[in-house]
Amino acid sequence: MIETREGYAPQSPATLAAYLGGIPRVAALLGGAPSGWNIAEVGDGNLNLVFIVKGPAGGVAVKQALPYVRLVGESWPLPLSRAHYEHMALSEQARLTGRLTPEIYHYDETLALIVMELLEPHIIMRRGMIAGIEYPKFAEDISTFMARTLYFTSDLALTADKKKAMIAAFAGNTALCKITEDLIFTDPYRVAPLNRWTSPQLDAYAAEWRDDGDLKVAVSRLKLKFLSSAEAMLHGDLHTGSIMLTPADTRVIDPEFAFMGPMGFDAGAVIANFLLNYFSQDGHEKEPGGRDGYREWVLATLQQIWVFFRAKFLALWRGDGMGDAYPAALFEDAEGQSRLEQERQAYMDRLWTDTVGFAAAKMTRRILGLAHNIDLEWIEDKDRRALCEARALILSRDMMVNPGNYASVEALAEAARRTRRNVLNY
Amino acid sequence: MIETREGYAPQSPATLAAYLGGIPRVAALLGGAPSGWNIAEVGDGNLNLVFIVKGPAGGVAVKQALPYVRLVGESWPLPLSRAHYEHMALSEQARLTGRLTPEIYHYDETLALIVMELLEPHIIMRRGMIAGIEYPKFAEDISTFMARTLYFTSDLALTADKKKAMIAAFAGNTALCKITEDLIFTDPYRVAPLNRWTSPQLDAYAAEWRDDGDLKVAVSRLKLKFLSSAEAMLHGDLHTGSIMLTPADTRVIDPEFAFMGPMGFDAGAVIANFLLNYFSQDGHEKEPGGRDGYREWVLATLQQIWVFFRAKFLALWRGDGMGDAYPAALFEDAEGQSRLEQERQAYMDRLWTDTVGFAAAKMTRRILGLAHNIDLEWIEDKDRRALCEARALILSRDMMVNPGNYASVEALAEAARRTRRNVLNY
Repeated sequence: MIETREGYAPQSPATLAAYLGGIPRVAALLGGAPSGWNIAEVGDGNLNLVFIVKGPAGGVAVKQALPYVRLVGESWPLPLSRAHYEHMALSEQARLTGRLTPEIYHYDETLALIVMELLEPHIIMRRGMIAGIEYPKFAEDISTFMARTLYFTSDLALTADKKKAMIAAFAGNTALCKITEDLIFTDPYRVAPLNRWTSPQLDAYAAEWRDDGDLKVAVSRLKLKFLSSAEAMLHGDLHTGSIMLTPADTRVIDPEFAFMGPMGFDAGAVIANFLLNYFSQDGHEKEPGGRDGYREWVLATLQQIWVFFRAKFLALWRGDGMGDAYPAALFEDAEGQSRLEQERQAYMDRLWTDTVGFAAAKMTRRILGLAHNIDLEWIEDKDRRALCEARALILSRDMMVNPGNYASVEALAEAARRTRRNVLNY
Repeated sequence: MIETREGYAPQSPATLAAYLGGIPRVAALLGGAPSGWNIAEVGDGNLNLVFIVKGPAGGVAVKQALPYVRLVGESWPLPLSRAHYEHMALSEQARLTGRLTPEIYHYDETLALIVMELLEPHIIMRRGMIAGIEYPKFAEDISTFMARTLYFTSDLALTADKKKAMIAAFAGNTALCKITEDLIFTDPYRVAPLNRWTSPQLDAYAAEWRDDGDLKVAVSRLKLKFLSSAEAMLHGDLHTGSIMLTPADTRVIDPEFAFMGPMGFDAGAVIANFLLNYFSQDGHEKEPGGRDGYREWVLATLQQIWVFFRAKFLALWRGDGMGDAYPAALFEDAEGQSRLEQERQAYMDRLWTDTVGFAAAKMTRRILGLAHNIDLEWIEDKDRRALCEARALILSRDMMVNPGNYASVEALAEAARRTRRNVLNY
């Protein structure tokens, strides 16, 4: 049933102009009179309304939740409360990372509406990567975002009471979490009406994924971790479609899936989307080898993301360590310090193993599940697309079942190269 | 600062008689007039007021939280809200286990007061075990309590939204969780003013425990799991002092430490207290070997507890499996069923490993930390007590650092026998 809420109404350009005109800060940013503002609804996305508003002095972006999934319609209700969680996560991410998120100008809980910085000339990263654009600052920025948002909301940085308060604050975002639980961890491994794949080319893969007991146990273990491990505040949907950037500036948007979950889920999302893009390049290059250089940039950046993230997370832990986990009082002398440092490295190794597993789940779901990536969808030649997808599937299966085969990000990158080289037919 | 709350006042026998007289159900249970009721404050415990009230027709027990730790006084405030969490957990445990908890007759949130069934002629299990009393039904009962309370509040039985609602409902019980975090997982491994141990006999052990990097890392990993793994609703303090019983009837009381945490913590508490009692028997037997038979009953019961628990938990999972974890839809055919069964066994193996670790932490804290067990404290000969304690410490250290050495509960029981046989001096 579609949610109704006293005072809620989906905005149109006309109603939005009047509404924004009543918010002094926003009106000043835009300049001039509301009648002169140019307002366009541009939401190309799956869930929400998105407006771009421009006035003589500047622009803003406005995101409003609808009480259903926009892509599907009123038959798939989705609570307006997701705007509440998105606003809460955005505020926290802004506090922790500064300029790596869009600035929030105004939030209206009743309208489930956020007015925020208009990011120009930023584009969605996924589109840039399909076009073969390099982003030299990205690894630096995203690793900072991940390290700071994950570290500072974990038990390593928070006292237990503050951590539990965050868990309670995000515990209501269940409808969004359920989308992840179903579409990532369940549906691709069973017959589900919303599944789709490049057919008939990948029919045998889809059938095999539904029959593979080891794989289904592995993805179920990951799902259990997603359900029960409240390690840190996650963005929850940290793929390259949730990043707007230029070569000089990176912003992470759309944290409406935020909740307290396992860190490897966010890290895995970034890694997965880089691997999917890597495999997709064969479908985008104009002549064989035309994207060889870009492919290597993708893998080099993927490696930097993890290496930088690991180093930054560890540096924060070494310099702060104010949380209730691994209390400083237990490791004060030189020997204790050295033993704790060894454990920090082991902690990051365990997180890497989680990351590999979650990355694998995110790769599979984009090929056999409901929501696909344009990296692969835009490859018009279905045989070619199927070959790219088969490579990603083959690698992801082994990542999920045998994460120990990928002891380092370098080993993972090399496995991607090897898979591309050796798998020549879907 | 001591909490004050509108309408709250600690009860005395006189005020309590008037109060209970105003609750028709309780007044009827007691019979006669309030002036004829016999009311005694009997709280021998650490935290609360406990009254036993008897009338011509029957009796009730009344437990009221104080805004501080009774044992220590007003210098250690503790929120009244713990009665709220205790009542919530008791209600849930009663729903899930029927007659394995005391019946609740009345709950007063403002007074932080619970009126419940008077358990007669039940005694605290710890006292019975010190006296060498066998409880032939106990393994059956406690394994049912553990299996049903843990299974039905886990992701194996609950949908994610219901599970997250429970997490949020218990998230505020942070003051009680902090007691566990400090006294079990931290203080025994550092110089802390509240620590105490049998001195000077165990001084070297206490020093070694503070210096042992492997041990401090191991206990910190357990603490991290306690902080971040919301696997199921825990009793939170499931030692033999939280059990009242007769040979024919078992009741679990006092779940004020309840929260959503790692299952191994509850299972480990039971195991730990059986091991501590096992090692304490050398201090209670009247002549050498006088408790040989009882010692073997303790170990046989310990083994039954885990074996029965494992079988019952698995049976519930096989017969129910309605939760969001390991969804049935993924394992429908014969091969899937067989693979899922293999994973169920692996799940219980992992839970056993957690249990061994948490049991070890609970053993150490009772010997080197603030709160000791009368099983050991009542041994008057300090040398003898220190020997019993040293054996428990030596075993607990290896359990925590090398849980893989204890692949089964039989192996753990055998290690206890071996430790007792081989460690002849503290």
